[in-house]
Formats: sequence, C-alpha cells, structure tokens
Amino acid sequence: MTQPPPAEIGDDLQDVDTPALMIDLDAFEANVAKLGKTVADFGVRLRAHSKTHKCPEIALRQIAAGAVGICCQKVGEAEAMVAGGVPDVLITNQIWGEKKLKRLAALAHEARVGVLVDDAQNVADLGHAARDAGVSLDVYVEIDVGAGRCGIEPGAPAVTLANAVTEQDGLRFAGLQAYHGSAQHIRTANERGAAIGAACDRVRETLSAMEDAGINVPIVTGAGTGSFHFEAASGLYQEMQCGSYIFMDADYAQNMDQRGDPFTEFRHSLYVLVTVMSATKPGRAVVDAGHKALGNDQGMPWVADIPGARYQGPSDDHGTLILDDAARGVLLGEKIRLIPGHCDPTVNLYDWFVVVQGGRVVDLWEISARGAIR
Amino acid sequence: MTQPPPAEIGDDLQDVDTPALMIDLDAFEANVAKLGKTVADFGVRLRAHSKTHKCPEIALRQIAAGAVGICCQKVGEAEAMVAGGVPDVLITNQIWGEKKLKRLAALAHEARVGVLVDDAQNVADLGHAARDAGVSLDVYVEIDVGAGRCGIEPGAPAVTLANAVTEQDGLRFAGLQAYHGSAQHIRTANERGAAIGAACDRVRETLSAMEDAGINVPIVTGAGTGSFHFEAASGLYQEMQCGSYIFMDADYAQNMDQRGDPFTEFRHSLYVLVTVMSATKPGRAVVDAGHKALGNDQGMPWVADIPGARYQGPSDDHGTLILDDAARGVLLGEKIRLIPGHCDPTVNLYDWFVVVQGGRVVDLWEISARGAIR
Repeated sequence: MTQPPPAEIGDDLQDVDTPALMIDLDAFEANVAKLGKTVADFGVRLRAHSKTHKCPEIALRQIAAGAVGICCQKVGEAEAMVAGGVPDVLITNQIWGEKKLKRLAALAHEARVGVLVDDAQNVADLGHAARDAGVSLDVYVEIDVGAGRCGIEPGAPAVTLANAVTEQDGLRFAGLQAYHGSAQHIRTANERGAAIGAACDRVRETLSAMEDAGINVPIVTGAGTGSFHFEAASGLYQEMQCGSYIFMDADYAQNMDQRGDPFTEFRHSLYVLVTVMSATKPGRAVVDAGHKALGNDQGMPWVADIPGARYQGPSDDHGTLILDDAARGVLLGEKIRLIPGHCDPTVNLYDWFVVVQGGRVVDLWEISARGAIR
Repeated sequence: MTQPPPAEIGDDLQDVDTPALMIDLDAFEANVAKLGKTVADFGVRLRAHSKTHKCPEIALRQIAAGAVGICCQKVGEAEAMVAGGVPDVLITNQIWGEKKLKRLAALAHEARVGVLVDDAQNVADLGHAARDAGVSLDVYVEIDVGAGRCGIEPGAPAVTLANAVTEQDGLRFAGLQAYHGSAQHIRTANERGAAIGAACDRVRETLSAMEDAGINVPIVTGAGTGSFHFEAASGLYQEMQCGSYIFMDADYAQNMDQRGDPFTEFRHSLYVLVTVMSATKPGRAVVDAGHKALGNDQGMPWVADIPGARYQGPSDDHGTLILDDAARGVLLGEKIRLIPGHCDPTVNLYDWFVVVQGGRVVDLWEISARGAIR
C-alpha cells in the first residue's frame, strides 16, 4: 500500500511525523539551476537520471530547466515517469524477458523510449518486440569504459553490435552509452579525472572504429554527478546522465575538487527527519530510523542539526546518535535532520517527499516509482 | 504507488517477472509449525514479530499455529496488521509525539494494543492519549538487558517506572520487555547462551525488586530466532518474540548450534528471484537486483541455484555473480534464486510475496505494511 503523507501542506516542520523524507526546496532549486547552467556552458546536454528521485514532479522540473529527457534504470520506473508526463526516457540498462520487452515496446506508443544493448540476441529480441508493437526504439550500444559491469568491449565488438541494431526494423542505432559508474566516488579529482581519461580513450577507440565502418554515432551519453566535468570537457560526450546532484548525499560530499577541497558544487537538499525515542544513557540518543528508513550501503548518515554528533549502529528501525558534547543532551521527542549516506536507496524507501521552505511544508511530491524495480 | 504483482496465480516459476520476492510455501509452513511445537514443548508462548514479514496473511497463519498475537515495530505496522484482521498487537518500541500517540490509542478501539516505555514523561503522555481516546493500553517496561539501545536500567528504576504506569488511568502494567537484540547473531551457541545468561540476571534482579515492591509482573517477553532456546529454558520468560524463523536468511544461517554445526533448525523459505541481464566477461554475470531489491546490511545474499557462485558488488539496481566454475557459464535471461542476506529490510522493498509450491505460483500475499515506518 502507498503510505499516507507524513504531513499536510502548511504544517510547521516540527509537526511532520517521522521518519520522513524532506526536500529543502531552496537548495534543491539552486542545484537544478546550477547544473542546468553548467552543462549549457560546456555546450553539452543533460539527461537527468531519475533513479535518484523516482518522482515525475522532479523529472518535469529537470526538463523545464533544460534537460532533454530523463534516464531510468527499470521499465517500471520508465512507466511511472511516462504516466507522470515525461515525454522522453532512456532506460540505462539491458532488458531481458518477453514480459518486460512487451512493456518496454508498449511505452513507445506514449513517449520516446531508449534502451541499452550489449548482446546480439538481445538486439534480435528487442527488434521483435518493437515490430510486434509497431513502434520504433532508440537503441544505444553500451561499451564497458572501465566499470567492469555491463557493456561490450570498445572498438570492433561495438561496431558489430551497432550493425546488428541497424539491421533490425523497428530499432534505431542512437549512439553509445559510456558510463563509468565506479569512477563517481573516487575521492580525489586527479584520480577521478584519470579514470574518466581512460574511459575517454575507450570511447575514442570506438568512435574511430565506427567511423572506419561508416557508422554514424548520433550521440555519446554517460557521466554522473561525481565525474561530469571531465566528460563534458572531453569533446567526446554530448549528453550527461547526472542524478544525485539534485540532493547531494554524505557519500558525494566526501569527494574532493581539483584543489583538494570538499565537493561543494551542489548543496545538501535531502534530509530524513527523525525523532528521539529513547535516551537512557548519557551522551546517547536512540532515534526512530534504521535500515528501513535510510540507505546505509555507502556509509552512515550525517547528523545535520547537532554539531559533532554521529549516527551509528542502525538496526531495522533504530539508530543511535553519539553526542560528542554529552552536556548538550537531546530532548526526548526532539526532531532532528539527518543527511542520508546514499540518496538513491534512501528515496526508494518512501512514498512522499515533504517539500519544505522557510520552516514550513509547501508541497508533497509523490515518489510514484518507489519500488519500481522491475 | 503499490507495484502490481510480478506474477499471476498458476504461473510457472520461470514466468515470474524479476526481481521478485518468493516464498517456498512448504519450507515456510514447516518453519511455522516447527516453532509452534518447540515453544509449546518449552511451555512458553509465541508472540511472533511481524517486522520480518509486514504481511497480515502471515500474521494470521502464525496466530492459527498458536501465537497469542504479534509484535510490531511501528504504529503504522500495527495499523496495517489490525486492518488485516490481527486482534492483538504489541509495539515493541517507545512511541513519542502527539500524532503517533493518538493513532496508537485509536487502534485500541479495534484490537488489544501494547507498547513499551522507558521514560516517565512518556508514561504520562501515553496515559493522556489513552484517556482522551477512552481506551486501555497494555504498557510494558523495557529494561536494557545488554543490547545498550533502548530500555531503562534493571532493578529499582524499573520499579519506579512500573509504579508510574499503574498510577495512570487508561494504562495497565503488562510486564517487562527484556529483548537482547545484539545477542541474536553471536555466532557460537556458548557465547549466545552467556549473553542471554547475563540478560536473565538482569530480569531476575528486576523481578526480585518488583516482588519486594509488591508489584505483580504479568509477563516477561523477549527473545528472537537466534536466542529463544535460552530464554525459553530460563523459567523467567513466558513469551518469545521470534520473527526471522519463518524465512531464515543468510545471516541467521551463519549462527552455530551447541555442537558447532550450522543452525539448521529452520529452512530457507525466502528467495529473491533475479534475471541475468548482462554477461560480457568470462566467469561473471550481472543480475537485475542491487540495493533496491536486497537488504545487504548484514552481508551479501547467497546464490541458491548455482553451486560455488557468489553475489558481490551491488549497486542500486545491479549485482554481479562470480562463478567459480566459469565453464558452467550462465544464460542471458536465466532466472536465479538468491537467499537474502537479511530478510527484514529485503521484505520492506517489495509489495508482494509470490508464494510458490511445486514450481508454480499458488498465491500472492500483499506486504501491506511495506514502508510503514512511522
């Protein structure tokens, strides 16, 4: 069941029931505007990744700020986005299975739909599904640019696969997916830049092989919040797939910029509001949010509202705050904001964003692709 | 939004869309029956924990097998259980905040409702809420028996708090909560037994102080799947709060019994069915399930269907299978069962259990308290 919202529009922040997922609207809007301007200055375009927010309202705001469309990870995510009015979706994944391919093709009646491939049989299956549905799909050949996850080898194998796409009625070879996921959280800018430099070599090799084979590559797409400056400056990529920039989590905040300073290009705009429910030990307070309210896979959340406090030891529904300044104490029932360790899996645990401005709830945005993992 | 079920009743296992959460009905029923018999043999009762399954259908089956009622972690969980027909719920947590206390008290019009306390102000707030709603609440004093999380100190402080409960019209002192959460996954039975032995000392000390103060303690409740043999045998506890026994995850399977053998009292009955979506490197296969489909906080899932294979390196929507027997290979599009590392947060990611028997889908059970974290 969809959970009811934890607040009403007009509520004071202190009246929001917890745990609740909150957006600081000013910080969020500043982030959306800032990346929009930055990619325009680089002369590239943005296809924002919706796996971060799973919320059509946010996707439409990203598009209004200049994004050409959005990325999704799953057919179910794309369905929710298209149902919410998004006209252009790219599923940055390989899709297998008859049921899913049917859903994917059906979606192309309502929106522009792209998908990745790294296997010839999958290309044939996609062609079948597209023709059965009477639609055209944009197909991107994914090359492995260093993450070692999905994607075909650069160069000749990519050419062979692009040709396979072109041979299928109903499929259009739309370009290359060249995303380096594992580079996003390399902490120093120099090492991040080196990883993307190596990715660019693989893109260059593939573009050259495509050119030799007489294949036009309409677009090279990839990049994320941690690395996009490098791809955008490379002259090889035309499209950025940043997602986390809208929220900034504690993980991304540990990246460093070129000067070795913390990565402050974007502001923290996402919080989990929690309540102190037990405080029977000095210097400690138990809050009502554990693994079911926070994505802790990249590290613990930060405590925004108490200097020096740390969140630790989460269980399913509890977490403990360790207070450096034990004298400060906490009040039982007190509400405290945490900055999630990892925004994407945190968002997937909630049905609503509580949108806050000036200490008041100004909007409620449904996370309609929450749980859309198929 | 609630996601649609990934299968229909009657489907073959291979037709289930993925990632999907599956119950092996035979193993599940064997687990439910086995614990029912074991607690009866010990002469104690079971109040099964619904935070594991969040599904009224399962709660009703546990009650049909002898459980006196269920435990919940959140008011929202209790609301979903009562809406699903459960007549007796104990919220094994402290509840703060006017909104939540109102919901808690309202629920007592429909079911027997219990709650924990470890603070005198909270007792007063609960009394207020109960009287405002015209209901009676069962209140258990939680003592810290070694986990160091919530709970008041054993002995005299617990007596003072029990007296505070008794003084409030609308509240009934129902007993002691004495759950040792962090003992559940101590790997050797001897060390687990020692931790519960220390917990029992604290219970004994508190019961003695209560007796000296002339306070009747109706029940001592606690214990989990990892430790319940010790509490049940102690003569001090009358009620067990086991939850994970119905499913058995990879974490519990690493506990050892008294002989040092793996803990096989219960069978694995919960699986996440995944699909191979990319396999461009020898000995590796990428599947369509990452952090948004699996609770990995206690370690990675096990690969049930491929001997020697390991799941590793999850990202939000991908995981990688490492195949010891590279020659075995995997088929693109192949469906494979994983045993979750941690059942509770895994279940909270899904809206449906796909119930399987003899290779066919025989039922779909809604996880109606999914996301009920408030």
